[in-house]
Amino acid sequence: MKKIPVFLMGCGGVGRYLLQHIVSCRSIHSKLGVYLRVIGVCDSKSLLVPMDVLKEELNDEVLSEICIVKSTGSSLSKLGALEKGGYQVFNDSESRKVTEEIAERLGKSTGLAVVDCSATMDTIEVLMKAVDEGCCVVLANKKPLTSTMEHYDKLVLHPRHVRHESTVGAGLPVIASMNRIISSGDPVHKIVGSLSGTLGYVMSELEDGKPLSQVVRAAKTLGYTEPDPRDDLSGMDVARKALILARLLGKRVVMDSIKIESLYPEEMGPGLMSVDDFLNNEIVNLDQNIEDRVKRASSNGCVLRYVCVIEGSSVQVGIREVSKDSPLGRLRGSDNIVEIYSRCYKEQPLVIQGAGAGNDTTAAGVLADILDLQDLFP
Amino acid sequence: MKKIPVFLMGCGGVGRYLLQHIVSCRSIHSKLGVYLRVIGVCDSKSLLVPMDVLKEELNDEVLSEICIVKSTGSSLSKLGALEKGGYQVFNDSESRKVTEEIAERLGKSTGLAVVDCSATMDTIEVLMKAVDEGCCVVLANKKPLTSTMEHYDKLVLHPRHVRHESTVGAGLPVIASMNRIISSGDPVHKIVGSLSGTLGYVMSELEDGKPLSQVVRAAKTLGYTEPDPRDDLSGMDVARKALILARLLGKRVVMDSIKIESLYPEEMGPGLMSVDDFLNNEIVNLDQNIEDRVKRASSNGCVLRYVCVIEGSSVQVGIREVSKDSPLGRLRGSDNIVEIYSRCYKEQPLVIQGAGAGNDTTAAGVLADILDLQDLFP
Repeated sequence: MKKIPVFLMGCGGVGRYLLQHIVSCRSIHSKLGVYLRVIGVCDSKSLLVPMDVLKEELNDEVLSEICIVKSTGSSLSKLGALEKGGYQVFNDSESRKVTEEIAERLGKSTGLAVVDCSATMDTIEVLMKAVDEGCCVVLANKKPLTSTMEHYDKLVLHPRHVRHESTVGAGLPVIASMNRIISSGDPVHKIVGSLSGTLGYVMSELEDGKPLSQVVRAAKTLGYTEPDPRDDLSGMDVARKALILARLLGKRVVMDSIKIESLYPEEMGPGLMSVDDFLNNEIVNLDQNIEDRVKRASSNGCVLRYVCVIEGSSVQVGIREVSKDSPLGRLRGSDNIVEIYSRCYKEQPLVIQGAGAGNDTTAAGVLADILDLQDLFP
Repeated sequence: MKKIPVFLMGCGGVGRYLLQHIVSCRSIHSKLGVYLRVIGVCDSKSLLVPMDVLKEELNDEVLSEICIVKSTGSSLSKLGALEKGGYQVFNDSESRKVTEEIAERLGKSTGLAVVDCSATMDTIEVLMKAVDEGCCVVLANKKPLTSTMEHYDKLVLHPRHVRHESTVGAGLPVIASMNRIISSGDPVHKIVGSLSGTLGYVMSELEDGKPLSQVVRAAKTLGYTEPDPRDDLSGMDVARKALILARLLGKRVVMDSIKIESLYPEEMGPGLMSVDDFLNNEIVNLDQNIEDRVKRASSNGCVLRYVCVIEGSSVQVGIREVSKDSPLGRLRGSDNIVEIYSRCYKEQPLVIQGAGAGNDTTAAGVLADILDLQDLFP
């Protein structure tokens, strides 16, 4: 039985689902000849490890308790398992040093998969140390990959040691498929993607003639948006995903060079007005302009979609008119879609479509990534 | 630099494109840190190998000449390179024994990727020997995977040593995506696929009101069908692909248990009448029935598609009414499409769509498969 030691950073949303999946997949993984040995879990405040990371693990009982504790929003330090002993808890100030020591000890012996399900830039130093020590790195966290080119180059120094499927389109097999296309020498000419479930929903609702303000308020009520819907409407999240795809294609691009169209003007930004003020008083002023654009598109046989377009050295993110009859134009609801144009997929693109959000699906993508590393472990 | 020794069986169509891709991808693969060392190529008549398979290879000049010779339909034994010496050619009767010796010598030393781009069952014994010797196996050939369960179990004995993306949907990342879903423990409930470019074209043309006989004759003229279009219309090729997908999901299915709807009745079969007789005199008798079905579907808001449906223990292949508004219903022309329903992709399926035929695309899928094995090589 092949053993993959796993160290998890970030055990809220996606990380919690990952731990659940690891426990519930024991028999499936056993049939595949693989065992995932979880040897460390940390949240932003604490790090939990067994007494001896080389020989012991956080067993399924502890992992299940972590899932329960984290689902209530509590900290790892509240675990009942700690009272029985056998585990060590480190606080925030010791956490990084201990993690780096673990990466050093395991990276060059049993191997280690360092999994980042957080949503911060705080993990970058640990990740780079892990790469240095020969560890594998699996990311659901987009931020380290969208940092400077220097950070990026360091992270992907050993491409076969890195997976990050869930940074784009959740569990949709976009990165895995692109890696296949790249390794087969099929040059990618263009990628067009609708990579935000929220904006996908908003754009397809607009098409039905509803005003933007009403659609965004409804999306917030349905729980489709971030607490501040402007975090979706700014296009920054889509830009991060576009940057990750562009860099995967070998393009030397940084966030600042991406042309991003925000759905609201600067003067309605989070620093200048509250969420309530934006939603109740100001967003209504954006309705007419969008309505005009929807009508103009419709008269061209088109609909509006919020897309990323990667072509040549250009990466753009914003509203585009697309044909009603294209896969993108026919997209409804919150599904994501990616169209890849290459030599093999020239007139008609390779299309990958499906749910592109959700903790369950995102965690499934992370788990598939970890399993995909198995040949690197003894 | 990682070296992957490659032994190729079948160097007509797909195999020839594979050799071209291998040569033209040298610099891309070099950046990925991988070198593909081709140590043997065979067609149905001859086997070509260097004098010492452990140290030498068929260099790019020879590989390019093989592509030229094979594109003219000639045999490997006609290679000009042979005159310069340094290579050995074996005829059909010696070929299998020599191949098995190579698998034995390389399987447990440098490793070996045995690639089957043929379209026969004749390779099965060599493939099973290769698996026994620890070689990796990459298949574009559907036949070995659709043989008995005994053969299948033997072929996939070491799942990480086997790749067969190009057996379903050419280079479309269907198998790779399904393997990800399986390893993440996301249970697949149902797969619906349109896996024949020919039948996809035929069904979407019927929708426009054209008679079946006219559509099939046009498809043959356009080169979309096999020389005998009944090889497509029988549904056997789709059934083979469906069987491969079902077995990948762990179902113990054999060809005989698949319900296959043929588009022509037994009495019009290849044993009973010529291609010309079928196309010029008989197929017209099938027009009315299909036209009625198209109309009936249309009155239900549906169109007809020739699909495979894998659900529970059942595998069915034939014409189905599907909603005009579903991804399958919107499919036009010769693209393939696969819809996968699972826990993560429940209401809306994961959809993979694009060109599902062509030697270039199929060979690209084989090459991506070979590169995907790289962690198993020293």
